Amino acid sequence: VPEFDLIDTFVSALPHARAPKGPGDDAAVLGELCVTTDALVEGVHFTRPPFTLADVGHKALATNLSDLAAMGAKPAWWLCALGLPRGFTARQLRELAAGMRPLARAHGLQLAGGNVSQSPVLSLTLTLAGHAKKPLLRSGARAGDLLYVVGWLGEAAAGRTLPAFAPAQRRPTPLVAEGLLAARFATAAIDVSDGLLQDLGHVLHASRVGARLEAARLPLRRELLRHRAALDWALRGGEDYALLLAVPGNRAAALERAWKSRTPLTRIGTFTRAPGLHLDGEPVEATGFQHF
Amino acid sequence: VPEFDLIDTFVSALPHARAPKGPGDDAAVLGELCVTTDALVEGVHFTRPPFTLADVGHKALATNLSDLAAMGAKPAWWLCALGLPRGFTARQLRELAAGMRPLARAHGLQLAGGNVSQSPVLSLTLTLAGHAKKPLLRSGARAGDLLYVVGWLGEAAAGRTLPAFAPAQRRPTPLVAEGLLAARFATAAIDVSDGLLQDLGHVLHASRVGARLEAARLPLRRELLRHRAALDWALRGGEDYALLLAVPGNRAAALERAWKSRTPLTRIGTFTRAPGLHLDGEPVEATGFQHF
Repeated sequence: VPEFDLIDTFVSALPHARAPKGPGDDAAVLGELCVTTDALVEGVHFTRPPFTLADVGHKALATNLSDLAAMGAKPAWWLCALGLPRGFTARQLRELAAGMRPLARAHGLQLAGGNVSQSPVLSLTLTLAGHAKKPLLRSGARAGDLLYVVGWLGEAAAGRTLPAFAPAQRRPTPLVAEGLLAARFATAAIDVSDGLLQDLGHVLHASRVGARLEAARLPLRRELLRHRAALDWALRGGEDYALLLAVPGNRAAALERAWKSRTPLTRIGTFTRAPGLHLDGEPVEATGFQHF
Repeated sequence: VPEFDLIDTFVSALPHARAPKGPGDDAAVLGELCVTTDALVEGVHFTRPPFTLADVGHKALATNLSDLAAMGAKPAWWLCALGLPRGFTARQLRELAAGMRPLARAHGLQLAGGNVSQSPVLSLTLTLAGHAKKPLLRSGARAGDLLYVVGWLGEAAAGRTLPAFAPAQRRPTPLVAEGLLAARFATAAIDVSDGLLQDLGHVLHASRVGARLEAARLPLRRELLRHRAALDWALRGGEDYALLLAVPGNRAAALERAWKSRTPLTRIGTFTRAPGLHLDGEPVEATGFQHF
């Protein structure tokens, strides 16, 4: 059963808040609070080696921060539920925390609570909350809006096979400041965790629009371009934690002028009234990284 | 390494909020929001059988609701991170949700988001939030306050060996309404998840007081009393999800008058200026159920 059908099954069986407040965005919107939860499980999302405990700590916090970034929310506090295998030591726990500390400090994130329990494998389930007066939702894109990517695509997927890109997969950078800036101009956003096509597909579905993409515009690092799989990694690879933005045409120039980050902001296409996803004029399916 | 040392190690390695806002109470206090996270892991906290999936769903929500009850908080919304073993079906997920639904409905709890990932064993990590203008903390007890228990003690521990009590261990009742009422009179509270002595020990430590307990006053069901282990189950058993309250002497009569619940409210002792824990005049150690 695909992941998204399982989520639908579960949500529809329980009293739930309605979108945009409820399930279906990068974070739940509760007043001015955006709250997200995400898990990292050993053997599923990482193995040790090549991951160090510090890598695991970094990545757990980074993937959750990326969800807040996609909402244009300012990180505030977090809870950390740890599942520790038998024999896990205090020293190992400090290594895990050491991988989290720089990100927590950089983003002003206060640990407010958590839980420790035994578990057959190491698992981290984090809950992060941030503040946003007007959060970016998946449902805000309109036909005619321009489609931007913040960051690079395909690196994490490349890192699963090419050692040179492995750090990108183990230590993704959450684009928090970029998301906060984007929130002043964009009408919708999502983070690219499951691959450009699949995550863009969520925006199209929620916003009831289509999109046209231009392959030549996709932000791929030069070192990646010489690999045959580069385009596929960029389209379907997942774990890039880039941001996709919908920006009204009349705000695009202002966004580009305001952009101070060294992380690239790249226009890669346009949202359309006609449904579906087109790459260089050809229809493509909105599929990507499969969790199950 | 004991669980509480691991928690201290982790918390002190990261930027964290300070108690009462931060780690160390049943829930984090963030403005008028109380937020708690707790995990239920297959093979650690339950096995199937004897647990059904509906039991697992019930217990996951009940243990988190109990944390809110201990804060005197009114449940509001929740996030659910599920770790599902390979091959877990939509039908099984509906069974899990069916065990949660009655509690979610009864307590007006709205599912606001979550996460589904693969996992070697079934695991549920829930984050619940509730509202409390003046939350009950562990640190509020004063010498001279009376010590009350809400609910019965020892049943869950009995249920691990006696079939007749097994439902108490699989389907604990979170004392949410009782916690809300208690918050109008009590100065401190905690839920009994790790055993009366251990959880009372947390209150004594946070409040810098001692306590005297009277064994004959402990609320034990008649059917339990004929078992030799009954007192030990009540003192150290864990998983009762009863509430401990500190109530100033001049508010105790008003609390007892206001008590409408069928769940018993029982005075079992007194908080003292002298540190340490005494049972019928003899010193006892604040130990209980060991997670590790």
